[in-house]
Amino acid sequence: MRMAFYPAIASLLLVCCTVVAGDSGNKWTISKRLVPAPMGASEVLRNAIIATPAPDVRQRLKNFEKIDWGAMKRARAASRTFPLSDLGKYLNVEIRSDEINGVKVHHVIPSEIDPKFNNALFLYLHGGAYVFGAGDNSVSEAAVISNTSKIRALSVDYRMPPADPFPAAVDDVVTVYRHVLKTTAAKSIAIGGTSAGGGLSLAAVHQFISLNLDVPGAIYAGTPWSDLTKTGDTLYTNEGLDRILVTYDGLLKAAALLYADGNDLKNPLLSPVYGSFDKFPPTYLVTGTRDLFLSDTVRVHRKLRTAGIVADLNVYEALSHAGYVYNPASPESQQTYGEMREFLRTHLQ
Amino acid sequence: MRMAFYPAIASLLLVCCTVVAGDSGNKWTISKRLVPAPMGASEVLRNAIIATPAPDVRQRLKNFEKIDWGAMKRARAASRTFPLSDLGKYLNVEIRSDEINGVKVHHVIPSEIDPKFNNALFLYLHGGAYVFGAGDNSVSEAAVISNTSKIRALSVDYRMPPADPFPAAVDDVVTVYRHVLKTTAAKSIAIGGTSAGGGLSLAAVHQFISLNLDVPGAIYAGTPWSDLTKTGDTLYTNEGLDRILVTYDGLLKAAALLYADGNDLKNPLLSPVYGSFDKFPPTYLVTGTRDLFLSDTVRVHRKLRTAGIVADLNVYEALSHAGYVYNPASPESQQTYGEMREFLRTHLQ
Repeated sequence: MRMAFYPAIASLLLVCCTVVAGDSGNKWTISKRLVPAPMGASEVLRNAIIATPAPDVRQRLKNFEKIDWGAMKRARAASRTFPLSDLGKYLNVEIRSDEINGVKVHHVIPSEIDPKFNNALFLYLHGGAYVFGAGDNSVSEAAVISNTSKIRALSVDYRMPPADPFPAAVDDVVTVYRHVLKTTAAKSIAIGGTSAGGGLSLAAVHQFISLNLDVPGAIYAGTPWSDLTKTGDTLYTNEGLDRILVTYDGLLKAAALLYADGNDLKNPLLSPVYGSFDKFPPTYLVTGTRDLFLSDTVRVHRKLRTAGIVADLNVYEALSHAGYVYNPASPESQQTYGEMREFLRTHLQ
Repeated sequence: MRMAFYPAIASLLLVCCTVVAGDSGNKWTISKRLVPAPMGASEVLRNAIIATPAPDVRQRLKNFEKIDWGAMKRARAASRTFPLSDLGKYLNVEIRSDEINGVKVHHVIPSEIDPKFNNALFLYLHGGAYVFGAGDNSVSEAAVISNTSKIRALSVDYRMPPADPFPAAVDDVVTVYRHVLKTTAAKSIAIGGTSAGGGLSLAAVHQFISLNLDVPGAIYAGTPWSDLTKTGDTLYTNEGLDRILVTYDGLLKAAALLYADGNDLKNPLLSPVYGSFDKFPPTYLVTGTRDLFLSDTVRVHRKLRTAGIVADLNVYEALSHAGYVYNPASPESQQTYGEMREFLRTHLQ
């Protein structure tokens, strides 16, 4: 096959497509537009979007010009805390808080365990931009996964900044993983989470590999924050369309810098998309067309696939960042956790 | 699991995310923005985007206010025709034009056939918005696929409007498929194409099922035009970002109406996303984050997966509609056709 000939062939294919000139160069100006409620999304999601005020990027940036991290962490934790006993009751899981070699963890045991998962464990890492989501709040999605997949989960309440920036979180995950490996085969362990939890899961696997630890049997990368820099194309194109994150500038950028603590943001332990995926286990990925991290997700998927790794990408129509988490009664949520269960059943030993 | 409790749980998850009020209701105003060249895309794609003037939506609409279909078809065919003999020579395939029960076809035989595909056939349907891309031009991607997958291909030069609107194209595919079934097992046949070719492939499989024909062994749905209506969310959000299609309004909308010829655009034989996917074969799907048909592709993927069908979705960073077709030396193109080969090897009998 002579590549030199290819441009000529390319011009033959799909002849409906001519590009018309406008402004040019390194940056394109994309004009203002009206975006209607997404008629191709589920009714639940569409109604939720209709009920949501359009995200206001400028207001959002103003809100996060100056951040008092300590005060914000306390306020968020206080406003969202839900007693673990109630969470466990409603999701039919038993939750027990513990410490492993100094790292806070929460054990989650479902009322029924899938016989396939008798010896398996889901190592869960919570989201929250590497700053928020600690304590009791860190267990919620782990409880959902434990309940839907009928698998034991261990939620790692890893250290975070301002007190404990990178690499504390990665170190804590390694500490817990080493401990788990004493009683559980690596191939029977899944690791995963959403947003920063997805990114940290990928970063932790990079670290496991560099430490010559056996890799887990599967990864759940829910819209992973795989790149702390402002590189992904959808950070620009989906700005203001993502009703959850709204914009990278402001809170996310500040959180990235706070967490990185002066380290190179492209260090694969901070931005796992920049690492090698050659030795990675099968990975299940979820995102949406309006997700600010759509690019962060598909770039990881492509790197996994070109490394020859089994990687299952799922993109939901008009879904914002982590939208499947916010309404567990929605089809998006039920499909995500239902298909994850099948993925784990296929790939965990 | 009590769903009534879920909103409370949901508020616990990912606490970094608060939505800030702006305008609201059924339509959101998304503000003008500057989108830089995508640093996370391949170097080849990024340079191609830098070299491209930003798509001009208004100019594009003006260009297609009044369309003389006959003149446009002739002009496009004339400007793009490349002798089949040269195409064959450069891609190491033999191309032979033929007719099957009145339908024009092109046989494509690669110089080397994968032993796994000794009895297999790729039934190829070209793109071009159901109006363009006929004749010699219709064979190009079939030749690329035949060469890269080392599989025989049969490219269907189906009838198109203005002379022959829907359902002529579907009928022609059925005619050829019935003929092929006489000598080839259904499970050894792949069907597919890009854009309208992907949409027509999905529509044809709907028709095979309603005619009680055995379904093929695999489908290649390259950024399929699965919905002729303006429903997909990315028709709005990626308008002007997709440098190939640019906008639904104008040419695409006119082509949809011309092809449909007064029939309901949501007929699954016109817009296959609205059909049932219960009996579909394994399907390989490709799109990009800037693709106007990103939604059309992921909506089909979701419908396939919820129907329990093997479906492999691949989304390329910053790629416009069918961008993998235009630069076959690009990583996006090589990954698409390389991974399709493995998909066919796995799923064709």
